[in-house]
Amino acid sequence: MDALLKEIAAIVGDAHVLTGEAVTARVVDWMTGAPCQAAAIVRPASTEDVAAVMRACHAARQPVVTHGGLTGLVHGAEASDDELVISLERMAAIETLDPVGATLTVQAGAPLQRVQEAAEAAGLQFALDLGARGSCTIGGNIATNAGGIRVIRYGMMRQQVLGLEAVLADGSVVSSMNHMLKNNAGYDLKQLFIGSEGTLGIVTRAVLRLQPPTPAVQTALVACPSFAALTGLLGHLGRSLGGSLAAFEAMWQSHYRLLTVESQRHAPPLTPDAPFYAIVESLGSDPDSHAAQFAQALETALEHELIGDAVLAHSDSQRQGLWAIREDIEGLIQGLSPLFTFDVSLPIAEMEGYVSNVEAAIHRDWPAGRVVTFGHLGDGNLHLSVGVGSQDPATRRAVEQHVYAPLAALGGSVSAEHGIGLEKRDYLALSRSREELALMRTLKQALDPHGLLNRHKVVAND
Amino acid sequence: MDALLKEIAAIVGDAHVLTGEAVTARVVDWMTGAPCQAAAIVRPASTEDVAAVMRACHAARQPVVTHGGLTGLVHGAEASDDELVISLERMAAIETLDPVGATLTVQAGAPLQRVQEAAEAAGLQFALDLGARGSCTIGGNIATNAGGIRVIRYGMMRQQVLGLEAVLADGSVVSSMNHMLKNNAGYDLKQLFIGSEGTLGIVTRAVLRLQPPTPAVQTALVACPSFAALTGLLGHLGRSLGGSLAAFEAMWQSHYRLLTVESQRHAPPLTPDAPFYAIVESLGSDPDSHAAQFAQALETALEHELIGDAVLAHSDSQRQGLWAIREDIEGLIQGLSPLFTFDVSLPIAEMEGYVSNVEAAIHRDWPAGRVVTFGHLGDGNLHLSVGVGSQDPATRRAVEQHVYAPLAALGGSVSAEHGIGLEKRDYLALSRSREELALMRTLKQALDPHGLLNRHKVVAND
Repeated sequence: MDALLKEIAAIVGDAHVLTGEAVTARVVDWMTGAPCQAAAIVRPASTEDVAAVMRACHAARQPVVTHGGLTGLVHGAEASDDELVISLERMAAIETLDPVGATLTVQAGAPLQRVQEAAEAAGLQFALDLGARGSCTIGGNIATNAGGIRVIRYGMMRQQVLGLEAVLADGSVVSSMNHMLKNNAGYDLKQLFIGSEGTLGIVTRAVLRLQPPTPAVQTALVACPSFAALTGLLGHLGRSLGGSLAAFEAMWQSHYRLLTVESQRHAPPLTPDAPFYAIVESLGSDPDSHAAQFAQALETALEHELIGDAVLAHSDSQRQGLWAIREDIEGLIQGLSPLFTFDVSLPIAEMEGYVSNVEAAIHRDWPAGRVVTFGHLGDGNLHLSVGVGSQDPATRRAVEQHVYAPLAALGGSVSAEHGIGLEKRDYLALSRSREELALMRTLKQALDPHGLLNRHKVVAND
Repeated sequence: MDALLKEIAAIVGDAHVLTGEAVTARVVDWMTGAPCQAAAIVRPASTEDVAAVMRACHAARQPVVTHGGLTGLVHGAEASDDELVISLERMAAIETLDPVGATLTVQAGAPLQRVQEAAEAAGLQFALDLGARGSCTIGGNIATNAGGIRVIRYGMMRQQVLGLEAVLADGSVVSSMNHMLKNNAGYDLKQLFIGSEGTLGIVTRAVLRLQPPTPAVQTALVACPSFAALTGLLGHLGRSLGGSLAAFEAMWQSHYRLLTVESQRHAPPLTPDAPFYAIVESLGSDPDSHAAQFAQALETALEHELIGDAVLAHSDSQRQGLWAIREDIEGLIQGLSPLFTFDVSLPIAEMEGYVSNVEAAIHRDWPAGRVVTFGHLGDGNLHLSVGVGSQDPATRRAVEQHVYAPLAALGGSVSAEHGIGLEKRDYLALSRSREELALMRTLKQALDPHGLLNRHKVVAND
């Protein structure tokens, strides 16, 4: 290892090979506060640096773990003492912005928020948005195919990436920096690296698609008398808003009650007795006409009893007040602690029954247990938080079984947007067939035959 | 071969193994009328049939070519006498439609138009649209990652596919029939089969994403005084129309003049002296407010001199009249014949210079030669038609050089939406680096080591 670290120091400079306390001083998991473990943290400054480091690691058969903003939730960035961490923190430049083609070229270590701000400064917007925007990086967003709160309108990170550059396990550089919406010249290689959690290559740069700005924002909190009404509302708003519907965040009563009347953390804008609530948000161009269209759509929904009641945000602070009920993860943690959190997806039509069944199973085993549910309904994505009074490994496995096992029969997924990492590896087979897993392993074997890239994660070749 | 055909007949039935004149009676290329060549055409009825056929072919090391609607333009479906054609024509069922989740499950042989109609019947829409809708199939749309006329709003076929099922070269079935917008459970395997032109697997079924309907259609033909005005208009409409801009079809004067005053095929709705024209189309929900928004956006564009003149379609027949000028491929062929047609993409900001340079190069070698250009500007996609009075192979190579070679320096692509097939294989290296081609071959080798699937096409392993 020492000889290899010397070789790497000659590439990136002594100051950029961290060891000892400089490694363990870093927190690798913000949920648990766990310290970083690694033989060293290497900080390259360029794609060429990463390539040279990987050539050295390949020759030495040295496994590596790539670090972005460390905001992941599935232990995808964990390393051990015999692994090297490659941190892209010095590769954070926004290289170019093309206002005509509406593209932005960036190094992978740039934080998401810096990209959003650069797009705004040019009169455009970058469409991906999520709570960790200030610390998560574009490279991490790509590696995990990040989702967030605007997926029904703009898609996940995969849809925002036009081109990228990746360093393979052997140090070769695959530069696929396409700038066009359309490019069918052979296989679309970037797809391999998006969402594969650093196991097939290290993404070092990317060309991102920018969107026209949408200055007119309309937000409402609504109460729905039934699940059928909730899904009816989703369809109605899709039809009425002409493509501007950007968020449809459903909250089961369990979530709404906990964060308002129970915890007293938020004054309830609507009475807490409806079975379902939703925050709906629409993004348009002209504020006046967009407001009229949004109000009309809600009025029609009231007439058709898709919603029982609604409150519109008339200012940005009112808007933030509504979103705070949905986004108050700290309130969730306080209310349920110790808790397990889940990120699953399943066909929308199956959600009501699925959540009821999970609740019943939890209550059977833990009569005082609680299940709190919210989700990006339009995306088929639910986040369940389960508190049963204990957090030991055996309890975790038992709760995981209740949440994950029913997904197999429904065609659901054990990971909607967080990825697999280490945390969900044992459950991947619930969402993927034997043939799918075999094909994943074929890809891993073809691109990283020695298992050097984020080993043990997703579909390890071990 | 005889023993193999007997084995295959036992799987699909004697009536579904076509040989001799039943093969050559089929036209494999609608542009040239070339007859189908193959040892036999096999017509499976199910994924299980395809899998059994491929297991037999794999054991016999028998290469196959998959046939969909045969509307491709790059000789991607050509076979030879020692190959088998697997035609998916009997696998055309629309299996299920989920109105809540807005998904449609379909066999790969179903024509695009049938899917569009099924979606409409359920009060939804399938967003992909292109001229060949009546004959092209969903499987072909997936295999070629079809583009078409609504890409700026809805993306290419890749964005419409939620899940798929594919038969690999060895006959194993990878069923990835995901129904959710979000699913990060391991590698997104469907991406491998989308746009790889049948070289990595045979797509047999798919889950497609449906969209809310957009009954309000606004269409206009505009004349732009400069290329800067044309791209300015694209940005302006993107900002003003709040995400409803669905088509931005640019025509160079060469195209507009040829199809109107020169050929007398269409009365010119606007005088033919502007350097650029565009058909712009916006899809919304409410007809009245959408019409007002569209008219306002065009008025502002006139005030800012982004357009010199405009004509709005006030009826569906007027709309079709405008589109006819852009879509009159027969007029193009008559006006330029013999001609070569091209489908390239490049950064929008580079288009004006690129087209000028191609025109200059053509005129240098063929003073009477003509270049006629239109394209999906917002997608970075141009279609050039070049007529130089001759169509022999040497002339073709010379013209191809003029069109393709400049793309390399611009980061452009030799295929925006048509694919590579056989036709563009020799030019793939202009758009892809050595490392990209090596990675494509790695994938081909990993999934189809014996080269049985659509051999010689895209990146052949031969």
